[in-house]
Amino acid sequence: MVTITHNGENILRLNRILSAAQKRFGLYGVEKTTMREIAEDLNISKGALYYYFSDKEHLLKAVIEKEQDEFMVLFQNKIEMMNDPEEMLLEYIKTRSEHFRSLLNLSRFRMNDFWALKPIMETTWHSFHAKEVQIIESIFQLGIKKQVFKMESPKEVAELFLEILKGLRHSELHHKELLLLDERDYASLLHKTHLLLNIFVGGLKYSN
Amino acid sequence: MVTITHNGENILRLNRILSAAQKRFGLYGVEKTTMREIAEDLNISKGALYYYFSDKEHLLKAVIEKEQDEFMVLFQNKIEMMNDPEEMLLEYIKTRSEHFRSLLNLSRFRMNDFWALKPIMETTWHSFHAKEVQIIESIFQLGIKKQVFKMESPKEVAELFLEILKGLRHSELHHKELLLLDERDYASLLHKTHLLLNIFVGGLKYSN
Repeated sequence: MVTITHNGENILRLNRILSAAQKRFGLYGVEKTTMREIAEDLNISKGALYYYFSDKEHLLKAVIEKEQDEFMVLFQNKIEMMNDPEEMLLEYIKTRSEHFRSLLNLSRFRMNDFWALKPIMETTWHSFHAKEVQIIESIFQLGIKKQVFKMESPKEVAELFLEILKGLRHSELHHKELLLLDERDYASLLHKTHLLLNIFVGGLKYSN
Repeated sequence: MVTITHNGENILRLNRILSAAQKRFGLYGVEKTTMREIAEDLNISKGALYYYFSDKEHLLKAVIEKEQDEFMVLFQNKIEMMNDPEEMLLEYIKTRSEHFRSLLNLSRFRMNDFWALKPIMETTWHSFHAKEVQIIESIFQLGIKKQVFKMESPKEVAELFLEILKGLRHSELHHKELLLLDERDYASLLHKTHLLLNIFVGGLKYSN
């Protein structure tokens, strides 16, 4: 959950705000959404909304953190019954691709606006990245324990793996003015990611 | 060589211009170098220099193309005596890292200037990328022929491999204001690239 220190009564309202913002951002993009519209959707005053969030950027930050938490929970639920590290990695990149697609389409940033957000989002991205490294590292550790993977430093390889995934997404997006993946980009990105996963997992299995 | 259509007599002068520009750019960066200074280094008039290159950006383009050609020749010479595809790949990423480091340090771009160059450099980058894909693909083909590598589409895997290399370099550079790799960045990039190469090559060798 989002870490905003409010008393119990307000938590419900906070969640309602986040859902309303999520919906508006998803329909019209962040740029074309105003705080006034979100307040109107909720039948609350603009002042009441600003009591929770000092501006649209901080509201967006909270929405993104909510989506990230949901992604983590969704993934944990999916792998709960799994036992095969390779299958878990496949599930991870599948769930992760869907997550990023929905995040991108939710916010529909223009490239410049995206970079303008950077200082506000820095801690959010940083903590999400740390969680991702932990998850991938623990899957690698499981693979080592089961003697299907071989590697010296699982943490380092987890960081490399995530950096490569990020790089592939970047190269699919960087030529676009609007950060929005259409069906073709998404299919191409998924295809590349699967090809990478096959080779990468083969490399972790391979013993000299 | 650079493909500028000039008669024989001028080819020598053209090469002298490129060398002088290369030297100046390397010492002071592109930004801080003027066409006048390059002309003075060569003891020719500014007009004579502009006869060959309409502006500094086109001169830089020619210098970069010269460096890229030199990289290709250097690499071909290095692998001439080699027979092992894995060793060739290692040599490729080594030579390529040095090439990019010297290109970056030669030009010492500010990020914004670099993107401003994009339209001028588009064809240069495109043809260099195509040559790179060809080289990596032919190394993969050799590996398949020698039955050390297994893959369905060597061209597609070559493209993925190069995209990943580019992604790693990007993530090492994107937080920097000035496109200049210091010793620590360079060591970190080389380390990651070697780790990737080990896993990737292992994956190409691995058979289910």
